[in-house]
Amino acid sequence: MLEFHSTIQTQFSSHPVPDISHYNQSTFDELFEIANIAQEINLKAQVLLVIGVGGSFLGARAVIDALTPYFKTDAYGVEVIYAGQNMSGAYLNQLLKYLDTKEIYVNVISKSGSTMEPALAFRVVKQYMEQRYGIESKLRIIVTTDAEKGILKEVADKEGYRRFVIPSEVGGRYSIFTPVGLLPIAAAGIDIQAFIDGAKQAECDLSNENLEQNPAYQYAFSRYELYKKGYSVELLASFEPRLNKLHEWWKQLFGESEGKEYKGLYPSTVNYSTDLHAIGQFIQEGSRIMFETLIHFEEVEADTEIPFTLDDMDGLNYLAGRSMNAINATSKDGVALAHEEGDVPVMKIVLPKLDAYHVGYLMFFFMKACVISATLLEVNPFDQPGVEAYKQKMVELLKKDALVIQK
Amino acid sequence: MLEFHSTIQTQFSSHPVPDISHYNQSTFDELFEIANIAQEINLKAQVLLVIGVGGSFLGARAVIDALTPYFKTDAYGVEVIYAGQNMSGAYLNQLLKYLDTKEIYVNVISKSGSTMEPALAFRVVKQYMEQRYGIESKLRIIVTTDAEKGILKEVADKEGYRRFVIPSEVGGRYSIFTPVGLLPIAAAGIDIQAFIDGAKQAECDLSNENLEQNPAYQYAFSRYELYKKGYSVELLASFEPRLNKLHEWWKQLFGESEGKEYKGLYPSTVNYSTDLHAIGQFIQEGSRIMFETLIHFEEVEADTEIPFTLDDMDGLNYLAGRSMNAINATSKDGVALAHEEGDVPVMKIVLPKLDAYHVGYLMFFFMKACVISATLLEVNPFDQPGVEAYKQKMVELLKKDALVIQK
Repeated sequence: MLEFHSTIQTQFSSHPVPDISHYNQSTFDELFEIANIAQEINLKAQVLLVIGVGGSFLGARAVIDALTPYFKTDAYGVEVIYAGQNMSGAYLNQLLKYLDTKEIYVNVISKSGSTMEPALAFRVVKQYMEQRYGIESKLRIIVTTDAEKGILKEVADKEGYRRFVIPSEVGGRYSIFTPVGLLPIAAAGIDIQAFIDGAKQAECDLSNENLEQNPAYQYAFSRYELYKKGYSVELLASFEPRLNKLHEWWKQLFGESEGKEYKGLYPSTVNYSTDLHAIGQFIQEGSRIMFETLIHFEEVEADTEIPFTLDDMDGLNYLAGRSMNAINATSKDGVALAHEEGDVPVMKIVLPKLDAYHVGYLMFFFMKACVISATLLEVNPFDQPGVEAYKQKMVELLKKDALVIQK
Repeated sequence: MLEFHSTIQTQFSSHPVPDISHYNQSTFDELFEIANIAQEINLKAQVLLVIGVGGSFLGARAVIDALTPYFKTDAYGVEVIYAGQNMSGAYLNQLLKYLDTKEIYVNVISKSGSTMEPALAFRVVKQYMEQRYGIESKLRIIVTTDAEKGILKEVADKEGYRRFVIPSEVGGRYSIFTPVGLLPIAAAGIDIQAFIDGAKQAECDLSNENLEQNPAYQYAFSRYELYKKGYSVELLASFEPRLNKLHEWWKQLFGESEGKEYKGLYPSTVNYSTDLHAIGQFIQEGSRIMFETLIHFEEVEADTEIPFTLDDMDGLNYLAGRSMNAINATSKDGVALAHEEGDVPVMKIVLPKLDAYHVGYLMFFFMKACVISATLLEVNPFDQPGVEAYKQKMVELLKKDALVIQK
């Protein structure tokens, strides 16, 4: 199902870790409701605007990018766009102008509703929706938030918005298999049942106590060994550009889970071939601080055949008739050989096919491996105490400004 | 013009560096020709497909992203799309389907023409253009390559394509002010004269021998001091998401220039606010291996005003009437304070306005600082010997496969 390749010797053979199987436990009723609303969005809108930051959008964006075409024509279906992940006034201004030309639904996702970035975006978008759709805006805004408490829960109750629940025991970066991830993914036309089934299979396979058969342990132990040897950066790489956003999700997962108490590997993402011609020189011959984990899906839908040319001016006729995806896979092997020769340890994660099932499998694999890895480091995989620091400084400065303006 | 803020004490006060003023020396005739063809592309096409990898597209993409709207409606003008920067068969397949619905021009950019990624993409796209446009394809393909030699030069001569020259003494990552960058930028509707003028002003300001007044030296010396103190990662950050691709250009510039002889700071890019909720925890409290350089443009066109609400349920009325861009700027100050408290040294690069002139200024600033910085490290700022390693392995494997297939 998932193959893990590594030549790194590890001293561990087992390690107790917290159970995360409940992170993938949507009920049938919930899935049915998600599927229904996803269908309604597809009937009534061209754009689903997802308002959220961090774990509230990185997972959905990762899956949607990985499983929808690179270039979408108007016929494709609902376009998912994100807001509240930045505070650029220009972004929001130009987004609203673009939305003027489309029919829209909004899914605002926040556990508390009080995180500044999505709260500001939602304040602007809520007003926009009310001015544009009037009373119908109440149908077109869907809220995903805590079951019991928080500002967003109160707003949803007051306005009568339909509501999905973020389970209180699931943190943002582990929430992809809850409505946080599932509603936008379903609206984008992706088979959420297959996605969840893949994760269920991973949960089953990766609870195997025979560690030699458990790739999540192998990956976690290997990267911990490298950390102890003094490596400070892990590069997550793949050769299929639509996996870029999956890398970004992984970056949060590992960065927030491990980056505390002055510990942790810095998780950095690279996208090949582009980055071979950007940071490839550094990886090959720069400071020896990094190792690399390659993700590879053996089968990718849609391909291009290299044409034959009569003149063969570029000298590439030896590749004529071959599949570009196969050539891409070979370039992955070339990169692994070259980087290993350059003293960059390389691990490989290989899955059979780029589809909803295997993306679900991979994401659960990473969640499991992350919990193991943070436990080895002796840090709490589930908190993020440092994220508050900049928020406090920012709010202090904003309130000070507000006082000055009032005077 | 450009302000540089750093509290890092440096031991250097001067350092001899190679001159790069000739990297910005397009002639009037060349600029006139670029402007003419850019106009022709806007009259006859909806899409300009730029085929190139590394320095052949990262600069143009950086400028175009930084200076065009986040969301483009059909009325906007020419859409610039890239190919040859990856080897995904799915990407190329879906790209061609999308191109079927648009009128196209192609700009293929490669010094030699023999780099595998763009060469394969061009082989496919050339055939596509000939099948679709027949003899007119010769007018719709523009080549940017070496003046004298290389496969692409030969192809252009044979087919009668119009041609621009990559000066032989300018390496890819320094080529943004040559036709490599200028033609796609002009086609995207950006004022290339202002862009070049900004760089000329930077060239003039940054040749100042009074080092206290020269921010390029200050930046290079500061980062070198931090490198010597044991920091291994530089984060380049900004709060305006459309600068993301400028970060990627910077990553190649510094990574390829310095990452050799097992030396160099690892250049890593972050995009705020998104990454504050992804890797922010690690920056604040993880392994102490990084420092941060913040880019800020004081004025950004297009903005959003925070609306007032009667109920103030989210408690944000204290920000009502304020500009989102101003709030964003305050969040930058909050981040700098928080990260400095977390023992992450922070430098700031501040420019007055996000426009063609100041982006040109900033890019020349980085090129100058990079040459200084690599010289301090005692490495050659202009070569990239390690980039060949994976290419050789890949071509070996591909040729071996080809033999097996023939048998």
